[in-house]
Amino acid sequence: MQDLVTKLVEKNSSKIVLCVLDGLGGLPVRGKTELEAARTPNLDRISSGASLGLHVPVERGITPGSGAAHLALFGYDPVRNEIGRGVLEALGLGIDLGPSDMAVRGNFATVKYEGDTPVVTDRRAGRISTEENRKIISRISSAVSEISGVKVSFYPGLEHRFVVVLSFLAQLSESDALVCDTDPQAEGKSPVRPSGENKSSQKTAEIAGELIDRACEVIRDEPAANYMLLRGFSVRPDLPTFDRAYGLRAGCVAAYPMYRGVSKLLGMDVLEVSGDSIGDEIQTLSANFEDYDFFYLHVKKTDSYGEDGDFGAKAGVIEEFDSLLPEITRLGVDVLAVTGDHSTPAAMKSHSWHPVPLMISSKYCRGRGVEGFSESCCLSGDLGIIKATEIMPLLLAHAGRLRKFGA
Amino acid sequence: MQDLVTKLVEKNSSKIVLCVLDGLGGLPVRGKTELEAARTPNLDRISSGASLGLHVPVERGITPGSGAAHLALFGYDPVRNEIGRGVLEALGLGIDLGPSDMAVRGNFATVKYEGDTPVVTDRRAGRISTEENRKIISRISSAVSEISGVKVSFYPGLEHRFVVVLSFLAQLSESDALVCDTDPQAEGKSPVRPSGENKSSQKTAEIAGELIDRACEVIRDEPAANYMLLRGFSVRPDLPTFDRAYGLRAGCVAAYPMYRGVSKLLGMDVLEVSGDSIGDEIQTLSANFEDYDFFYLHVKKTDSYGEDGDFGAKAGVIEEFDSLLPEITRLGVDVLAVTGDHSTPAAMKSHSWHPVPLMISSKYCRGRGVEGFSESCCLSGDLGIIKATEIMPLLLAHAGRLRKFGA
Repeated sequence: MQDLVTKLVEKNSSKIVLCVLDGLGGLPVRGKTELEAARTPNLDRISSGASLGLHVPVERGITPGSGAAHLALFGYDPVRNEIGRGVLEALGLGIDLGPSDMAVRGNFATVKYEGDTPVVTDRRAGRISTEENRKIISRISSAVSEISGVKVSFYPGLEHRFVVVLSFLAQLSESDALVCDTDPQAEGKSPVRPSGENKSSQKTAEIAGELIDRACEVIRDEPAANYMLLRGFSVRPDLPTFDRAYGLRAGCVAAYPMYRGVSKLLGMDVLEVSGDSIGDEIQTLSANFEDYDFFYLHVKKTDSYGEDGDFGAKAGVIEEFDSLLPEITRLGVDVLAVTGDHSTPAAMKSHSWHPVPLMISSKYCRGRGVEGFSESCCLSGDLGIIKATEIMPLLLAHAGRLRKFGA
Repeated sequence: MQDLVTKLVEKNSSKIVLCVLDGLGGLPVRGKTELEAARTPNLDRISSGASLGLHVPVERGITPGSGAAHLALFGYDPVRNEIGRGVLEALGLGIDLGPSDMAVRGNFATVKYEGDTPVVTDRRAGRISTEENRKIISRISSAVSEISGVKVSFYPGLEHRFVVVLSFLAQLSESDALVCDTDPQAEGKSPVRPSGENKSSQKTAEIAGELIDRACEVIRDEPAANYMLLRGFSVRPDLPTFDRAYGLRAGCVAAYPMYRGVSKLLGMDVLEVSGDSIGDEIQTLSANFEDYDFFYLHVKKTDSYGEDGDFGAKAGVIEEFDSLLPEITRLGVDVLAVTGDHSTPAAMKSHSWHPVPLMISSKYCRGRGVEGFSESCCLSGDLGIIKATEIMPLLLAHAGRLRKFGA
């Protein structure tokens, strides 16, 4: 699908804005979903002339993580282009990854030694404080910075989590990262020795083995966390940029690192946002409006409150977005899309598989004349239920950016 | 799709019940389909809080046989995993097939001999009685039980039909069964000599040739049926079991052999049913409820009456099922699905390609609050029109049995 679109792309001066309210879709509580309960006069008004529908992020019944869901929204097959766990964690910490970088997720752990053999006593080191984590990372970083010509960088995360980036000398491929996790998945067991599935990943595994030995020697006397477990060895997926795939100069307006990271992977310019409010983001959008063809604007807190099970607060974020929507539309947007990356029903306190409401507004819509943007309105919308990967082609079409296919 | 699901499966203690009313979908007669004409207060009540939609068994416009339709319902690609005709016929007779068994459909026929050459005079031997069939099969069985080390077993079917099972010494593959049909498809022609498409099937063809020669020698003097035609050489498809694909201990509650056979192919436990009524089946479901995660409950007579063109009787079976539904729901079902394997409109007296009504009830549904389970209610349901192979992923999702995809 994306290949076909790429062949048909042509450029013009249109402006596309894709607003992603993270985890937008919901489930009814006392008869209404979060979106149905929220007062959204602006979305309702626009919806009456817009195209409405629902999208399935990955496949029916599949609950996506945020990385996979965003790839799909951006038109990249999320199953064929899975983002590795290490890379996703690195993106979440705002770490830049190049084509010769490998990212690995780390956990601090505690072990006891039986002779020379470590045995895991706590896989998460009692979830040490982030502050303590920073101190330990700093100790390790001073002692271990290079192994066999590969630069090693440690980045503290929250609690017991961290990221290691291995910077090789040459461009890497996925096969270089086929190294097993060292987490034995249970206390009372010894950490797994890193091993590779093939010759090139065996080289990676040797470096990882030496890294663990040297780092764990440094922290052997740390009372709270005297060991590290590594998981999710991965490299950046090799994806066409937005410019190459769609001919779009794309700007990302997102406050949270993971979303900024995924956008950067796809060659979007990640724009500075002064704070993490929707207002701050819209300010960034306004300030940069002339410089890009496409904007991705990400609202995080619909998802956060959904995960918390806070129905009212999630509906409140939707209302806040609605109240600020005129500040976006008055910029002169040709194609406005509002949707989520997946559903996060407050009733489930988690991501879910339910289809996600979608509105596309342009001057080429078969609007139904009915006001309302909600799961049920979208169900009777003109788009029907589509796959998330079909959204980008639709946005390009509405923007007049796709040539006719065939003669 | 099934591969992705398999990777994400996790186990819990939830109970899933999939009720398949065979041939459920219909066409309107005097404005209503069979399902619309039936009084179904229980289905209607449940539907108001359930997810509704329609499913396409194979592809748009494709009318499926029962085997293909059931494979699709169970989440197996019915086109890539076609069940051979011989195997399907064997399953319908309740014959167990192992990995070294090949099944073949047989027809008794009559021929006249021109010299040594047989020429078909009736391809179905005047549809001899089942009783006569049994007698002839018994004669052949005593005379032919082994050819070149391959065990040969004959099973009588209805009228002129029978099944031959060739039990080889080693596991077979599909290529061993690439043997042509011997039925010349017209009277006045000679039967086709079995021949194989490759080396291994050529061996099968030689055995089949000797089998035909020896068996037809035995019945050369039978006045009603002095010859046999063989078709549909096939081996069991190599499909992952329900346990391997979905992590489900699955029980089949079906009275008719073909459905029991397909379930067995997929590794379900085929449970004993004392009779062929829906009540008998529900009794089996109740008695075994604690021992399985997933139940497939099959109601045959909606299809049989559809094939008969008996609109009223088909609606009556739906009403009977509805009246017994509370006996299923009160068992404590977490995910209840009610659907058909395909449509069998009484107006057509045959299977058809029309999408099939589907209801999924769990606590995670975007119910629409409208009572009614029918083709038209399902058309405005929240599931839209999906493919049959998407049903199992949805059931697993509703049962909380699928992990998140990606982070």
